[in-house]
Amino acid sequence: MVPIKVAYDTTPISSIFRIDDESSISKQNQIIGFFESAIMAGSLRPGALLPSTRQLSVELCVSRRTVVISYDVLAAEGFIVGRRGSGFFVSQDLPSYTFNLDSPSGKKGGKQPNPDSVSWRSLENSGPRKLGLLSPGHPGLDTFPNKTWANLSRDLWRSRPGADVLAYGDAAGLLSLRKAIAEHLGISRGLVCRPEDLIITSGAQQAIDICARTLLNPGDKVWVENPSNRTGQSALLAAGGMLVPVPVDHKGLCVRSGMQVAPDAKLCYVTPARHYPLGFPMVASRRKALLDWASEHNSWILEDDYDGEIRYAGRPYRPLRADVPPGVNRVVYVGTFSKVLAPGLRLGFLIPPPELIEEFSAGCRAMYRQQSGPDQAILASFIANGHLASHLRRIRITYRERRDILLAALIEYCDDILEWEPSIVEAGLHIPVRLKCPLREGHTDETICQQLRKQNIRPTPLSSYYQECDEINNFLGFAIGFGSTRHELIRPTIKILSEAIRDHMV
Amino acid sequence: MVPIKVAYDTTPISSIFRIDDESSISKQNQIIGFFESAIMAGSLRPGALLPSTRQLSVELCVSRRTVVISYDVLAAEGFIVGRRGSGFFVSQDLPSYTFNLDSPSGKKGGKQPNPDSVSWRSLENSGPRKLGLLSPGHPGLDTFPNKTWANLSRDLWRSRPGADVLAYGDAAGLLSLRKAIAEHLGISRGLVCRPEDLIITSGAQQAIDICARTLLNPGDKVWVENPSNRTGQSALLAAGGMLVPVPVDHKGLCVRSGMQVAPDAKLCYVTPARHYPLGFPMVASRRKALLDWASEHNSWILEDDYDGEIRYAGRPYRPLRADVPPGVNRVVYVGTFSKVLAPGLRLGFLIPPPELIEEFSAGCRAMYRQQSGPDQAILASFIANGHLASHLRRIRITYRERRDILLAALIEYCDDILEWEPSIVEAGLHIPVRLKCPLREGHTDETICQQLRKQNIRPTPLSSYYQECDEINNFLGFAIGFGSTRHELIRPTIKILSEAIRDHMV
Repeated sequence: MVPIKVAYDTTPISSIFRIDDESSISKQNQIIGFFESAIMAGSLRPGALLPSTRQLSVELCVSRRTVVISYDVLAAEGFIVGRRGSGFFVSQDLPSYTFNLDSPSGKKGGKQPNPDSVSWRSLENSGPRKLGLLSPGHPGLDTFPNKTWANLSRDLWRSRPGADVLAYGDAAGLLSLRKAIAEHLGISRGLVCRPEDLIITSGAQQAIDICARTLLNPGDKVWVENPSNRTGQSALLAAGGMLVPVPVDHKGLCVRSGMQVAPDAKLCYVTPARHYPLGFPMVASRRKALLDWASEHNSWILEDDYDGEIRYAGRPYRPLRADVPPGVNRVVYVGTFSKVLAPGLRLGFLIPPPELIEEFSAGCRAMYRQQSGPDQAILASFIANGHLASHLRRIRITYRERRDILLAALIEYCDDILEWEPSIVEAGLHIPVRLKCPLREGHTDETICQQLRKQNIRPTPLSSYYQECDEINNFLGFAIGFGSTRHELIRPTIKILSEAIRDHMV
Repeated sequence: MVPIKVAYDTTPISSIFRIDDESSISKQNQIIGFFESAIMAGSLRPGALLPSTRQLSVELCVSRRTVVISYDVLAAEGFIVGRRGSGFFVSQDLPSYTFNLDSPSGKKGGKQPNPDSVSWRSLENSGPRKLGLLSPGHPGLDTFPNKTWANLSRDLWRSRPGADVLAYGDAAGLLSLRKAIAEHLGISRGLVCRPEDLIITSGAQQAIDICARTLLNPGDKVWVENPSNRTGQSALLAAGGMLVPVPVDHKGLCVRSGMQVAPDAKLCYVTPARHYPLGFPMVASRRKALLDWASEHNSWILEDDYDGEIRYAGRPYRPLRADVPPGVNRVVYVGTFSKVLAPGLRLGFLIPPPELIEEFSAGCRAMYRQQSGPDQAILASFIANGHLASHLRRIRITYRERRDILLAALIEYCDDILEWEPSIVEAGLHIPVRLKCPLREGHTDETICQQLRKQNIRPTPLSSYYQECDEINNFLGFAIGFGSTRHELIRPTIKILSEAIRDHMV
């Protein structure tokens, strides 16, 4: 590939783009937004050379660091390729994989629960979750740091813990844990917050519950991604939210579609760092559009950063919360230790805008008080003593190996019947794959999964993540998990999957 | 005292009372109800001898065991005295202490939250709880079995726990813990239930939350005790419940008052085994009336059995749930380990009627999934290996000693200014005391507590437990905790309390 040199060395970029110092959007996001629009509009063609970071920082009167970060984000999002030092080019290979959900479903409103008779069972699209081979979204229990945890437990009980651990305490959580998480988030996710901005919850699910019950009134519209993980949505429905499915493509949530269908939604529940289940990060222009919409409509963004730290190449994608312009924070950030440690610990956290922290804390007190004191204390030591950082390094290696085995097995057994997007396999605990062969009349991905469940093989049918889709047969496939399946079991299980699919093919 | 013999040996009791075999009320409760009414109506006078258990069982054609249990309950409630073998007499000394709340408040409805804008802070009558000297309702952190807990933790992590502990699991809780609790409840509380009837929650607060959100529709009336612990009520308010305060006297909740004010209430939130904060158990006639009301009106009873196991003389009072007639179960039983172990563990449980168990489990899944796996596993071993039983024996001794020191100190320093009811000091972690001296104009129990809080002395003002009382000055006093205050600190702290009270006296 010979890069096409365009004339940024002759035409100063400052003649077509300037930083708006008055804008509520950060300089970095303005730069990202400019390049993304120029690339998508075709005014910067594939292969075009970008100005050097030094040159651009001088032209735009911004720090070189701001330009460097902007380029890193653009590179992470696949818009540009290259390296600091040797120059950046517009990608020849722009993300194009999409599930063709360009237009919104057209149905306004979504499902409305009858607030007079909430039936929990009616909110569910499945019963209790069972862990099996190829289960998506689940860490490997064999990666859990049993020994370190045992030592930290022993140390805790030997120290005869006091009122902070054993008494009725601050519903927002143990201060030592909030400190440890805040510090970790700054380093690992570029998310700057104070310990007192953070509330410890029982995993992400309870964080969503408290958000829904604090921010929503019955009947309020809520944008949810389509496709999406439905579990989080049950808490939104239970609080009386009217779910409005908004399509997701390879750039993330189609914000414009959401604004067409329900501009007045009160909340948007979204996975910007890595969409679940499709795996795409939300691009900068969409992030900006979403933040702008929320700030203009006084709406809230509920950001579920479920596995943002599990990444095998490059830096983790920035959470949306880290891009919030100063002074206009409409983002409630939700994090969890379910993916990096274990769901059974039931520890997660949320970071509401600072002005809501007291209200959220009062809600926790009213509903369930604080989380387990001992668990919080042990996790706090685990993070503060550097165990989380080394654990993350270790599991990234283990999971990358499992992913490699999975990809090899998919190529070996399923290359003719399944397709997947190479750009999204560098992160997370699962790979979404799409069926590229027709199934027999009346057979679906769910039929195949039913058959597999008899052998405790439990990928999730891709169609189950979609709502209100008439053309559901276009979205058949599987979310194939590799996190919780041991190395040696992946290949034989994929062979069984391949055979099961062929059983149902035309 | 010479017992007055009445003519039960000549007039067969069966001529004035018969068991109704068709009734939904258990035979035992029919017997208790008959004697209680007869005693309260004066037809059985103080000192009267009751028929022997053998004689009565023959006359009524019921098992002797039924009569024995009935007499035990009547004795526990103070209606009769004596012992099996040597005969039972009507008590000379019937409970008479009451806070004079004979009539309901007269205001229908209670507080109605605006369901369109729930503000958590507006639901609270206090901020976060802080543990101090004389804090009521709190166990001693120095009684926590650190060493046993450390050993059980070590064993758990050494065994490399599997999916039951670490994965997404059954929202109803760990089966081994549910088994252990079910077995323990049968022995210690006479409450027979199967492990699958039981759901593990994050303490009692979350159990109340899930009850409220499952059983209540916005605007439904809810009977709450007056006075009462207000913390539990915030979850009822948050679910849109309209709280109707119902007075409590020395026999427990005045069911008739509740029926006058709000016969159509959907739920009654009650502490029948030991009223909080007054300490009285609910007598059999009231229990029967409450169960009858719930069954006739298809209403629910939410029984909070917060410290039923902490008792220094006699057997613990039976939970209401144990008296439910077969086939008509309207009681949701809530238990907690906050008082017998530590609130920081955040472990409790609820037992809904069996037909609601699936619905409650689905609600847990939708809102917060299961509780901490490791904590559940450790508590399960703690109970199953007999540690809970021996821990209960140990803490009963420690707390009885603290109570004795408290009573002695009250007599030494406060006999002229405070009064308390001797019948209720045989259980629990606090003693409610009433001011018997007038305070200066504008001074209240809250004023005194404010002053004491500066020295981290934190009894709760009794008046803070009352709602909608015009004559609140009649209810001034303190709930004085002794559970969490070390032996040697109780006497000097009561001295300070006494001085503080005298500072505010006329």
